[in-house]
Amino acid sequence: MMSDMALSTDGYKGTRDFYPADMRFRRFAFRRLEAVCEAFGYEPYDGPMLESFDLYAAKTGEEIVNRQLYHLKDQSDRHLAVRPEMTPTMARMVAAKIGELPRPIRWYSIPNLWRYERPQRGRLREHWQLNVDVLGGDILQADLEILNVAVSLISQFGSDAQVEVRINHRAIIDEFFTKELGLDGPTKLSVMKLVDAKDKMKPEDYERGLRTNALSDDQIKKLTHFFSLPLEELHRLHPSPGSSHLSKVLDLMRGLKLSALVRFDSTIMRGLDYYTGMVFEIFDTHEENRRAMFGGGRYDNLIGLFGKENLSGVGFGMGDVTLEHFLEVHRLKPSLPRELDLIVGCTADADLSRTLDAASRLRAAGASVATTLKSAGFGDTLKVANKQGAHFALLFGEDEWKAGTVVIKNLKSGNQEQVKWTELETWWSAQGAKNK
Amino acid sequence: MMSDMALSTDGYKGTRDFYPADMRFRRFAFRRLEAVCEAFGYEPYDGPMLESFDLYAAKTGEEIVNRQLYHLKDQSDRHLAVRPEMTPTMARMVAAKIGELPRPIRWYSIPNLWRYERPQRGRLREHWQLNVDVLGGDILQADLEILNVAVSLISQFGSDAQVEVRINHRAIIDEFFTKELGLDGPTKLSVMKLVDAKDKMKPEDYERGLRTNALSDDQIKKLTHFFSLPLEELHRLHPSPGSSHLSKVLDLMRGLKLSALVRFDSTIMRGLDYYTGMVFEIFDTHEENRRAMFGGGRYDNLIGLFGKENLSGVGFGMGDVTLEHFLEVHRLKPSLPRELDLIVGCTADADLSRTLDAASRLRAAGASVATTLKSAGFGDTLKVANKQGAHFALLFGEDEWKAGTVVIKNLKSGNQEQVKWTELETWWSAQGAKNK
Repeated sequence: MMSDMALSTDGYKGTRDFYPADMRFRRFAFRRLEAVCEAFGYEPYDGPMLESFDLYAAKTGEEIVNRQLYHLKDQSDRHLAVRPEMTPTMARMVAAKIGELPRPIRWYSIPNLWRYERPQRGRLREHWQLNVDVLGGDILQADLEILNVAVSLISQFGSDAQVEVRINHRAIIDEFFTKELGLDGPTKLSVMKLVDAKDKMKPEDYERGLRTNALSDDQIKKLTHFFSLPLEELHRLHPSPGSSHLSKVLDLMRGLKLSALVRFDSTIMRGLDYYTGMVFEIFDTHEENRRAMFGGGRYDNLIGLFGKENLSGVGFGMGDVTLEHFLEVHRLKPSLPRELDLIVGCTADADLSRTLDAASRLRAAGASVATTLKSAGFGDTLKVANKQGAHFALLFGEDEWKAGTVVIKNLKSGNQEQVKWTELETWWSAQGAKNK
Repeated sequence: MMSDMALSTDGYKGTRDFYPADMRFRRFAFRRLEAVCEAFGYEPYDGPMLESFDLYAAKTGEEIVNRQLYHLKDQSDRHLAVRPEMTPTMARMVAAKIGELPRPIRWYSIPNLWRYERPQRGRLREHWQLNVDVLGGDILQADLEILNVAVSLISQFGSDAQVEVRINHRAIIDEFFTKELGLDGPTKLSVMKLVDAKDKMKPEDYERGLRTNALSDDQIKKLTHFFSLPLEELHRLHPSPGSSHLSKVLDLMRGLKLSALVRFDSTIMRGLDYYTGMVFEIFDTHEENRRAMFGGGRYDNLIGLFGKENLSGVGFGMGDVTLEHFLEVHRLKPSLPRELDLIVGCTADADLSRTLDAASRLRAAGASVATTLKSAGFGDTLKVANKQGAHFALLFGEDEWKAGTVVIKNLKSGNQEQVKWTELETWWSAQGAKNK
């Protein structure tokens, strides 16, 4: 089966290879995200990378299922899909144990997701996405909490007040489109989609889109006016359970430090899939990156799809590419050098067991220790140690061995010292103490 | 696109859902594995979940590619596969940066992998697998190190001396099959496969298999004798670079604590894919689980497939299902309860901002804190706190608020105390100090 032609070293378009330096950032970012979720009492979960195609056909948006889904048949002709989002898996898992999971259910996960898209800045075919969901509990308290978690996640990276949370409610939009504009069916969906994309469109294209949907001048006037209303005014003119809920959310926000970051925005649609209540998007306020970074909302009917008890939930997903971009724009992406404590060198093959013994003892004392994997003089060992980014190099030849010592060179400061062979562990403990 | 029929809560056959309790074990296990790899100076990497089909067609075993691979075409008709193993991705990534990666290259990863197999104990369609590889360096030193890492990984879970490492060398087998038995081509592969599976077969089936391959009585006698030889004897009768290499590895092992665990076993074939040098398998020595848990070997020609510089490496993969099974059999699987420090209750909606403030302050002090997400009396809050597995419940009503205090109940001991509203952080620090 060997091919004569050389294989390509390129990965599949729209995916990334994570070399150790990339993994240091990814791990740093994920551990921060995990720490915030856990501080709020959220627990990790995960599900399989492939799921039944039907799971997505049921509720995932049509565009994703028809155009963006990676799907396949297994050897028994079962139709599977590579997960394009995590919410259906989460809903399936919650539904499967709905009777036994203590409530509220607070879950998070950082899965990799796949969508067939044209790769561009911020959009890749494979990305990782933090998903945070809370199911059960009082809707007002849960909605408030999920906004609090979303903002806390971002601010943990040192970016206070550099984001804005725009909230809306599906009921407000639904009622206005149905009752005031008299739209329904495909036209309603099409206009909602247009409004959702308004920020990314030229005004004339938006205008043309409205005309294409056969909206009258009067309807366009109503629409434009509606989207200009502040919440109080909108609630007075078009009172609905949605506007009343958002008023309460904003009231309660005033008691938290976050209130300045949250505002009502009736154009937030958040896709057109399973959301039924509050929806929200987190915007970067940096002038070079004024765009929606991530968002989410409340879903009332997702768990019920599995034919057991229904349970309302609220959640959001935050992509790793977006997060990294945000940190870069705000100069918050840390420099993360490799952390390798020591390289131990070996001058002759006969010394190998001594080398391995030194490495092993230092590891037992808590250090990360690599050997050079070749016998060489001090100079060559120091070269390897420098290239590998070690903090210290441990060197010994026959002279040192006879004197019962080793030479340890600090590769950052250039200082070197003699350490007794029997006191390697003590020496390492002292380094730890110095760094504290 | 909504279906009228209820969706199934079952995941795809041969996959697992990881609920929070499952994730606690997975994380515990992965963090231990990561810590050992990093103590040896190995760095994490990762690659995409889907790769070009060609990447596996080149060197992955025929059985996997033809029968076990999940593969699909994307919307542009590119032929992709869900990764069945990590080594091809690792080789691709190393080859892509072969000129700039400092050597030796020590890498590890814990990817999820997919194979279409009949699900059974220890074999699932999706599993996670720790992959550890070192490329470059002296072959003897690197082979020794990889065995050391493999054993250290297992022994870190508290299982000293409960595994056995069986090593072999491809050159020994190749030379014997070609020179002594006069076999080559498909017959050679078929007999090697049979020997590889010998331990799992009935003696009569093994015997029948040899006959099916048209082996003569003389060949069968030679084969049986060959596989009974200890290394010294084999090296004397059939000296080869392979037997000489293994003798050195075993010699050096005597200098390490691990020597008692390692022995020569000429029946270890380790599949039939890309290995060219030392191959090995780690066996559980527990009487209820005497089987190969994982293994690996040296590959000389994998990096060269990408048409750049060649580089020899050695590595292995250890599956999470196998590891969990091992820990269960040896009673080493820890009990890992949820770690939630506090539940904060709220007796009336009007108290909500106080509740959120208390939770927020305790989080800032380092505690994990969930709220009940509903206003309720002390009794109901304590019920929620117990079900959620919190260590403490923080309770206050109007009386406590007026007195400037809260009640904190230790749910493990049942003790409760009054804490001043202004001293929540101090109280939490004191808990941390007590637990040290």
